[in-house]
Amino acid sequence: MPRDSAPTKARILAAATDEFAAHGLAGARIDRIAEKAEANKQLIYRYFDNKEALLDRTLESNIDQLLDEIPFDAFDLPGYALALFDFGQAHPGLLRLVRWHTLERPGVLDAIPNARDSTLRKVEQMRQAQQAGAIDATLPPADMLNLILALIHSNMESAADDSDNRRRALAYGIRRLTAPATN
Amino acid sequence: MPRDSAPTKARILAAATDEFAAHGLAGARIDRIAEKAEANKQLIYRYFDNKEALLDRTLESNIDQLLDEIPFDAFDLPGYALALFDFGQAHPGLLRLVRWHTLERPGVLDAIPNARDSTLRKVEQMRQAQQAGAIDATLPPADMLNLILALIHSNMESAADDSDNRRRALAYGIRRLTAPATN
Repeated sequence: MPRDSAPTKARILAAATDEFAAHGLAGARIDRIAEKAEANKQLIYRYFDNKEALLDRTLESNIDQLLDEIPFDAFDLPGYALALFDFGQAHPGLLRLVRWHTLERPGVLDAIPNARDSTLRKVEQMRQAQQAGAIDATLPPADMLNLILALIHSNMESAADDSDNRRRALAYGIRRLTAPATN
Repeated sequence: MPRDSAPTKARILAAATDEFAAHGLAGARIDRIAEKAEANKQLIYRYFDNKEALLDRTLESNIDQLLDEIPFDAFDLPGYALALFDFGQAHPGLLRLVRWHTLERPGVLDAIPNARDSTLRKVEQMRQAQQAGAIDATLPPADMLNLILALIHSNMESAADDSDNRRRALAYGIRRLTAPATN
C-alpha cells in the first residue's frame, strides 16, 4: 500500500463523481471509474469497500468542497443563492449526483455529519437574521430555509443558454421571499 | 388478444408506477410488474414495446391524471400549490417517478405533448394574471412559473409528520413570491 494514497483517492473520487452523475448507483460501473482514474479495481474496493460506500463518499466529498467554497450568509441570501447557482454551473454533474443519491440512498445524506451540522448552522443563522429584522420572520427559520433552498436547487443546473435569465429570476425570487415587511 | 385491453393496460401502468417509483429505469424489473399486474411478460412487451417506452407511458399516464384533477389557476396560485401538494401526498410515488425519469430519460418529459401543451397554457395564464394585476409582473411569466413550480415540487413529498408545516410554508412562500406590489 503506497505511503501517500491521497492523490489516488482524489482521482478515484473525481472519476466517481462523473460516473455516478451520469449513471446513478445502479448504472455506474466500477470498471469505468478504475479506467478513468487510472487506478485498479481492487484498490478502489480496498479504499471504499463497495459501490454504495463509494457513492456516499463521493457525495460527501463534493458537499465538503461546496461548503468550503460557498459560505452561507443569512444576511445576504440573494448573494448566497447566486454563489450557489454559479457553483452549480461550474460543476454540472453535482445536482444530478445529489438527485441520484436522494433516490438510491434515501436518508443517507441527512446523516452525513458535515451536511447535518451545516444545516443546523444555517437554521441558527436564519434565526439571527430574523431577530435582527434583516429577513421576514413570519415562518420558522427552518421552513424559510427550505423554501430558499428549493428555489436555489431547482435552478442550479439550468441550460447554459438560459442561465442569465435563471440567475436573475432566482435572485429576484429570493429577495421577494425573504425581504422583511416594510410597513 | 382480448377485445378490451384497457383494464389490463391500466393494471400494468399501476404496477409500473410502483415499480419505477421504487427502483427507477435501471433497477425496475418487468417480471415484478407482470406479477403485480397479474399480466404476463409477453403481453407487457406487446403493449409497451420495451422498458424505456413503458416508463415514458407510465409517467405520461400519471401526468394526464394530475392535469385532469388539478387545474392550473394563475389567479389563485396558493390554492393551486396546495391542491398539487395534496395530490403529491395522496400519490407518494409520483415525485420519485418524475425524478427518476428526469435523470434516466433526460429531455423526454418536455416532449410529451400533454405536458408541453399544459406548460404553454400555464405561461399564457400567468401572462393574463400579470396583465390583470393579480400577480407580480416584474419577471417574464415563464420565469415566475419556474419559481412557483420549484417551490411546489420540492415540497410535494414531505414526510407525513411534517406535512402541515410544509403545507403552510408553501402557501406562504407562493403568496410572498407572487403578490402584486401594493404601492
